[in-house]
Order: sequence, then C-alpha cells, then structure tokens
Amino acid sequence: MAQSPLIEQLVVALKCLPGVGPKSAQRIAFHLLERDRDGARTLAGALNRASDEVGNCRCCRTLTEDEFCQLCANTQRDRTLLCIVETPSDVAAVEYTASYNGLYFVLMGHLSPLDGIGVEQLGLPLLADRLDQSEVKEVILATNATVEGEATAHYIAEMARGLGVKTTRLAQGVPMGGELEYVDGGTLTHALNGRREM
Amino acid sequence: MAQSPLIEQLVVALKCLPGVGPKSAQRIAFHLLERDRDGARTLAGALNRASDEVGNCRCCRTLTEDEFCQLCANTQRDRTLLCIVETPSDVAAVEYTASYNGLYFVLMGHLSPLDGIGVEQLGLPLLADRLDQSEVKEVILATNATVEGEATAHYIAEMARGLGVKTTRLAQGVPMGGELEYVDGGTLTHALNGRREM
Repeated sequence: MAQSPLIEQLVVALKCLPGVGPKSAQRIAFHLLERDRDGARTLAGALNRASDEVGNCRCCRTLTEDEFCQLCANTQRDRTLLCIVETPSDVAAVEYTASYNGLYFVLMGHLSPLDGIGVEQLGLPLLADRLDQSEVKEVILATNATVEGEATAHYIAEMARGLGVKTTRLAQGVPMGGELEYVDGGTLTHALNGRREM
Repeated sequence: MAQSPLIEQLVVALKCLPGVGPKSAQRIAFHLLERDRDGARTLAGALNRASDEVGNCRCCRTLTEDEFCQLCANTQRDRTLLCIVETPSDVAAVEYTASYNGLYFVLMGHLSPLDGIGVEQLGLPLLADRLDQSEVKEVILATNATVEGEATAHYIAEMARGLGVKTTRLAQGVPMGGELEYVDGGTLTHALNGRREM
C-alpha cells in the first residue's frame, strides 16, 4: 500500500484494539484524520494517562488510579459480603444489576497452571489474609461458569472452608427468556438439580 | 457506574471511534489496561503524531504528512490519467485492485450544498487549474454510485468537457458473483443499458 508512513503506523497501532483487523483499522484511521482530530488527541491523552496511572486497588485488586477503589472506599457497602470475580468487567456487570451491596475481590484471571497462572498470580494469599482478619461472613463465588472458572471456584471454596467462612456459588440454570428447546443439556441438568419450591 | 475517573475518561474517549458504543468502549479499555499497556501507549503516540502532522497532498489533496503524497511523487505513474475519488479510502480501494497506474484527485467529500460543501470545499478550482495546465488526457470519474456521487460526477464532467478533457465514468452493472435474481432493478437497468458485444 502506497500510504504515508504516519498513517500506516496509525493503522498498525489501531490493530492492538480487540476485534480490529486491517480493514477496520484503516477505516478508523481515515475517519479520525478526516473528521475527528480533536477526538483522536483526546483519546491519545486518555490512553497515556490511564496507562501510566491506573494500578490495582490494594484491597480488591481491581483497576483504579487510587490506592483503594471507589467501592472499597465506600463505607455504605456491606463489608460482611465478598463477591469473588475474575475481571474488572465482571465487577461492572454485577454492579449494573444494582442487586448487590457487598464488596468484591478481583482475581484478574483464573487458575491456569499451563499459562503460569497459579495461586500467587490470582492474589489468593491476600484473599486468605482478608478472610482471616476482616469481618467477611459470606464469600460469593462469581467466577465464570467455564471449566477454569469452576476449578478456581472450587479451590477458593476449599480455602474459605478451612478458614470457617460460608461460601456460596452463583445459581446456574435456564437464562431469563430462555426456551427449554434451545437450552443445552448441561444447563438443563443444572436447572433440574437446582430446582426450587414455588 | 462506580468506576475510577481515569478509566471512565478512557471509556468516553474510546467512543469517538466509529462503531464503538459504551459496551465495546469498556471492553476495549479493560483489555488495554489489563493486557496491552504498551499497545495503548504506542497507539497514543501514533494518534498524536498523525493528528499533528498529517495534512493534505498539495497536488491530489489526499491525506499525507509530506508536501506531495507517495503516489503524486512517483514518477513511474501515468500522468495522462486522472482518477477522481471522494475519499482517501477510495484511493486505497482502487490501488488495491493493482489495475490502475494513473494519478488521483481526492475530493474529500461530495457536493452537498445543504451541508455547506460546495465547489470550493471539494477543491474543484484546483482541479480545473490542473486539467488546464497539466498533461491529463482522461479524467476517470470514480465517485460513489450514490445520488450525491452522481451529482458530483456530472458537475465535474461538465467542467472537464469545457476544458476539452475526455471524461469517463466507472461502469455500472452486475457485481462479480452476483445472481440476477437478487440484483436490484436499478442495477439491472444499468447492466442492460451498458451491455457489450462478446
């Protein structure tokens, strides 16, 4: 492609965005240069500032530029409930429901020994200290319902049991609006096993 | 959302990208912060540099950081052919075919009086000078096959005729692999009117 080097560099750099391939990258580059240079400069500033300053909350490990994230610093939250999730996006998803008022602990991943992600990388020693010392009465395991998420949940459940803390797991079953005909067998098995009296 | 301000600013800034809404913006922000801060910093640099330095080619008006773009500066290209397109992406699309060896003139839009885009904004006086003074023998009108693109093409065709330059328009017809059953009536009319002897 006979494109000028700076545009080419921008196209290559845009490909670091998830879901952006060569075609979209070129479309985005031209869009920004033709119509929204202010937006591009604002984005550059936001990327630099966030990359330099955002770290992890000392308490729950989620992404934040402060020592403690806004949820951990909020004295209105119920400190006896601790929800364990894999990523900051999961915190956002649970917060979005507005049906949980406890605190979080973010693993920033799941157990995956082959990728070198073990107990240390997930901050489980920190979690053990917290369960041991703080007023947490119930741990809600909200890791993904994948093989790795389940394995991680089981590991943490064992750990919490050893420390005498009650442990629960998110319910599994038919999703809202789901039609039985199209629900997979595994989910239906979970829904049957977890059936509740009406 | 109880998100830290810097992350929130990054999410808002990411929404300037075409096709990125609030959900994707958050997904992209977390992806970059969790896994690719180097990519984020490189992108920020590329955005800043391109926004500051990329301007328009003095000859064909396409986006470039140099005085003349690589195509206009290339002495191997056929200077008697001039292809008129709406945007730099269109240049990329024609170049990608590898079946054109002439030069380009980029309108950076199409005639749209209601949006205040007229003859001046499209650089048509510059084009008229060029047709008058340079060795261009044929103008190929490759504006989009939309109402505005056709109107722009007609305007330029009149102008070129006045200056005694031969003017052609991209052929319209059935696209490659197109099935007649699914081709719209307008396209089929063009295909019939433009039929060629085999």
